[in-house]
Amino acid sequence: MNDAGLAFASIEEVGKLFRKRKLSPVELTKLILARIEQLNPKLNAYITVAAELALAQAKKAESELFTPRGRKGLRDRGPLHGIPISLKDNIYSKGIRTTAGSKILNDFIPQHDAQVVVLLREAGAVLLGKANMHEFAYGVTSNNPHFGPVRNPWDLARVPGGSSGGSAAAVAAGLCYASIGTDTGGSIRIPASLCGIVGFKPTRGHVSDSGVIPLSPTLDCTGPLARSTRDAAVVFEAIAQTHSFPFGSWSARKYSTELRKSRLGLPKEMFFDLLSDDIRNVFDAALRDFRKLGATIRKVSIPLLHETEEHGNQIAWAEATHYHQQAGHFPRCAADYGEDVRARLEMGTNVLATSYLQSVYLRTLFIQQLRFAMDEAGVNVLVVPTTPISSPVIGEETTVLAREQHPTRALLLRNSRPANLAGIPALSIPCGFTPSGLPVGLQLMGRHAGEQTLLRIAHAYERAHPRPGGPSL
Amino acid sequence: MNDAGLAFASIEEVGKLFRKRKLSPVELTKLILARIEQLNPKLNAYITVAAELALAQAKKAESELFTPRGRKGLRDRGPLHGIPISLKDNIYSKGIRTTAGSKILNDFIPQHDAQVVVLLREAGAVLLGKANMHEFAYGVTSNNPHFGPVRNPWDLARVPGGSSGGSAAAVAAGLCYASIGTDTGGSIRIPASLCGIVGFKPTRGHVSDSGVIPLSPTLDCTGPLARSTRDAAVVFEAIAQTHSFPFGSWSARKYSTELRKSRLGLPKEMFFDLLSDDIRNVFDAALRDFRKLGATIRKVSIPLLHETEEHGNQIAWAEATHYHQQAGHFPRCAADYGEDVRARLEMGTNVLATSYLQSVYLRTLFIQQLRFAMDEAGVNVLVVPTTPISSPVIGEETTVLAREQHPTRALLLRNSRPANLAGIPALSIPCGFTPSGLPVGLQLMGRHAGEQTLLRIAHAYERAHPRPGGPSL
Repeated sequence: MNDAGLAFASIEEVGKLFRKRKLSPVELTKLILARIEQLNPKLNAYITVAAELALAQAKKAESELFTPRGRKGLRDRGPLHGIPISLKDNIYSKGIRTTAGSKILNDFIPQHDAQVVVLLREAGAVLLGKANMHEFAYGVTSNNPHFGPVRNPWDLARVPGGSSGGSAAAVAAGLCYASIGTDTGGSIRIPASLCGIVGFKPTRGHVSDSGVIPLSPTLDCTGPLARSTRDAAVVFEAIAQTHSFPFGSWSARKYSTELRKSRLGLPKEMFFDLLSDDIRNVFDAALRDFRKLGATIRKVSIPLLHETEEHGNQIAWAEATHYHQQAGHFPRCAADYGEDVRARLEMGTNVLATSYLQSVYLRTLFIQQLRFAMDEAGVNVLVVPTTPISSPVIGEETTVLAREQHPTRALLLRNSRPANLAGIPALSIPCGFTPSGLPVGLQLMGRHAGEQTLLRIAHAYERAHPRPGGPSL
Repeated sequence: MNDAGLAFASIEEVGKLFRKRKLSPVELTKLILARIEQLNPKLNAYITVAAELALAQAKKAESELFTPRGRKGLRDRGPLHGIPISLKDNIYSKGIRTTAGSKILNDFIPQHDAQVVVLLREAGAVLLGKANMHEFAYGVTSNNPHFGPVRNPWDLARVPGGSSGGSAAAVAAGLCYASIGTDTGGSIRIPASLCGIVGFKPTRGHVSDSGVIPLSPTLDCTGPLARSTRDAAVVFEAIAQTHSFPFGSWSARKYSTELRKSRLGLPKEMFFDLLSDDIRNVFDAALRDFRKLGATIRKVSIPLLHETEEHGNQIAWAEATHYHQQAGHFPRCAADYGEDVRARLEMGTNVLATSYLQSVYLRTLFIQQLRFAMDEAGVNVLVVPTTPISSPVIGEETTVLAREQHPTRALLLRNSRPANLAGIPALSIPCGFTPSGLPVGLQLMGRHAGEQTLLRIAHAYERAHPRPGGPSL
């Protein structure tokens, strides 16, 4: 396998090479660090590269894995052992600065790891560095005013999506094997969709938020971005809070590429009201593919979907502003925020408590309606396009769709936000390209705690439709 | 025992008379109904008396209890079997109108019972009727503009406190053996204190709120008012959600009147900053009595107590207004509210979501500080006056204390609200009288789920200081 092949290999493939002694964690880490050195100036995917720390971890991983059997020190930590990964820069990393993409935290170096980082270290992963992101995760473009815009590996003039944009760009460009992102309204799935990779938002609470800088605490989720469902599942297993979530080992099971007994729900409301033709065509083809694999598609009616934008905004605006007030950043350091984030924080100061409480109440009704609709239709998974448009160019504020101008931000958020409101797991997988060569994502939304079913369906689709290769850079 | 003696007997005494066939549930129910007919015009404690339904229940209770042993139908439902009780009028009672003390719900007849009523019926209690209250439980005087003011049995010119004022007046005047009230900022404990009875707010969530018209859902608690700790405990056992709370049978245990190993905490902050001399004298005497019984008193510092008024108000204002908006009452029926409640609902429309969230956040810090302070001091119970003043006259809006005018409402709430914010159990027991003959209440606040310890300490104090008899009416 040549270097580029290695950089895009699956976590499983790399693990096999390690265990056959055909590749070492130190070699691989050096290879990926060299790629970062070469490509990061183009992509701006990393804010901080912790090369020395990464090499030290790789050496430790290697010594554990390569010590001859029976010798003291030998330890195989499982599928992530020696695998280079990255973290979105709002996740605490002990001794490595954690900016959250902000000027305000430019010099902040946490004294402890986030719980997910503790678990990743335990699993033997090698932390390469901290990924660029939308400032404080409060936006969907990753056009960062302090560290520069992240660029989409498929078209450097376009955004990778956000807020976990650096994570998605790094994974898509072979600058790490997976990244940990956060998702409050779609911040894992949107960039995964726009960068042609897999983004997985677990059930709320199934991955610890401890040590992750919040955006909207009742909507925030931490989860993996990776190049395949299987890779994402391996990372998810490492970071899932197994004490709260009895999760069987996904990677140990055999999955068919058939979906003969699967029933997928197609929501009647909202998702298909506003959609670019390019996305619609690719999505329709993907639905046909699901049918060919044996899946049945059933229409599902969830009228409260139309209200998710309003209620998601009320909750997120209020909670985000409250967090920034409470942390002492806002309004004290108002001048240090980018214009867009400051404007949203100001919006949050005007939300009334009764509106917030009404949105919290409507969230409960939405969850009930969603559950009932899925029960009635006998479906465990909903299938929709992850985003109604493909990647916009950097700086684009409005996008024309159905002959009208729409705020680009609202378009990018509308399809992913419902899963945050419902707290359910949702996953974006690549399902094709627009005629101009931009990736299109397909979103699967599951039941509460239905991660296994989601991953199984995504994996079956993916196996039948192998990824056509990475971007040329 | 004469009729008045019977009306003021304990639940245990009445139960013994039933089981000796010296008294029947029907006889007792008739006796109490007659007292209500005679005294309710003075006290205005009941909005609705369900005499026929009560007699039917008493007959059923009697037939179960009095059927000779071995005969079909015999069933002893335990200590509440055949005991006449009342419900605050914000608790759903199937087929009996439930006004919440409002004009808006003047004709509302629920089609089902609240969960507490289901449990009380299961326990064999006889429901006499629905107690008058502060409109929608949103106030502390029970000066009701639609059904007239409830009057304090110890002085008919004075308020019984609120919002469960009808419940407290009825219990104090021998018009029922216990009543179920609700407590969001003190609405069980304040009227218990002002009427010289026991009021018990359990740990939040230990009694079901289902079928209880909410005031501020994250602060609301349902609990008993009774003439003794033991009576309150018997009712609490019947209505506690045992599936969420492994509660041993309190009444089956023996309690000493000694408190040799008890350590009680005396908060340094807030409670003693504003206190009438009359209350202070009675409270200090009670503390001496606790010491005589063997208790140790330790000072405890909880500085966030000073902020409980502000944060309790923010949470209650926002949640109450949201509930009334969501129920469709406000602002649609704004003209149908009493002036004071309408003003408070309007206040709630101005609370910002960020202020609400900050108060929710401070509540968490307060809970942690309280827990830590009690851990440090080695105390499981705090002891304070339930209210800083005795019963004000009906219509009194401001009260002079320490040579300054204070809003009477704020004075009445200040000592009880902290337990609602903390979600901990708290109990008010009578501890004496002011020189002018008004009852004074002593509040014990326990640990989360510490109902047993609270009840044990209150019972020991009470046994050593028997109640001096009821009001003369």
